[in-house]
Amino acid sequence: MPFRHVVMFEFADHVPDDYADQVRAALDALPSQISQIRSYVHGDDAGLADGNWDYVLVADFDSADDYVTYRDHPIHQQMISDTIVGNLANRASVQYRYGK
Amino acid sequence: MPFRHVVMFEFADHVPDDYADQVRAALDALPSQISQIRSYVHGDDAGLADGNWDYVLVADFDSADDYVTYRDHPIHQQMISDTIVGNLANRASVQYRYGK
Repeated sequence: MPFRHVVMFEFADHVPDDYADQVRAALDALPSQISQIRSYVHGDDAGLADGNWDYVLVADFDSADDYVTYRDHPIHQQMISDTIVGNLANRASVQYRYGK
Repeated sequence: MPFRHVVMFEFADHVPDDYADQVRAALDALPSQISQIRSYVHGDDAGLADGNWDYVLVADFDSADDYVTYRDHPIHQQMISDTIVGNLANRASVQYRYGK
């Protein structure tokens, strides 16, 4: 059964204007380096609603074990350290199994 | 270009033990009644990580206009009023275009 990880970011006030593009580029580099990623669909908010957060990632894996391998992967951890840490006002995540 | 709406819930402390099942049933009733919904994949948190939120919905539409039709649809608004309002500690959402 597929296993999905969803994480949502609210950026800190101090981030540069191109921070969403920095996040996009950093995330785009991961699927080719972490073989457990099956699908990785992310983007910055379209601006339709006040109060929305700024960025969301929907990542699919074959299993919870593959998600944990991704979560703890040194390349993923390095990306978090380089690009994410210190730049968020809020972070929220949910993981869930879905489908058959 | 597909348009995706992601919304994440943190439940209030007072909700009943079966509240995730109530949310699931309420959401499952919508795709057959709101024709703009292309995909509607949701679930409660798998419990792998402390600090996670409780429920997430990933909903896909053909366009931002179709998303807005869904958002404002009376059946959707009635579900929010009946099942969601008053039962959340936090809500976060992001909409984004993705793919080609």
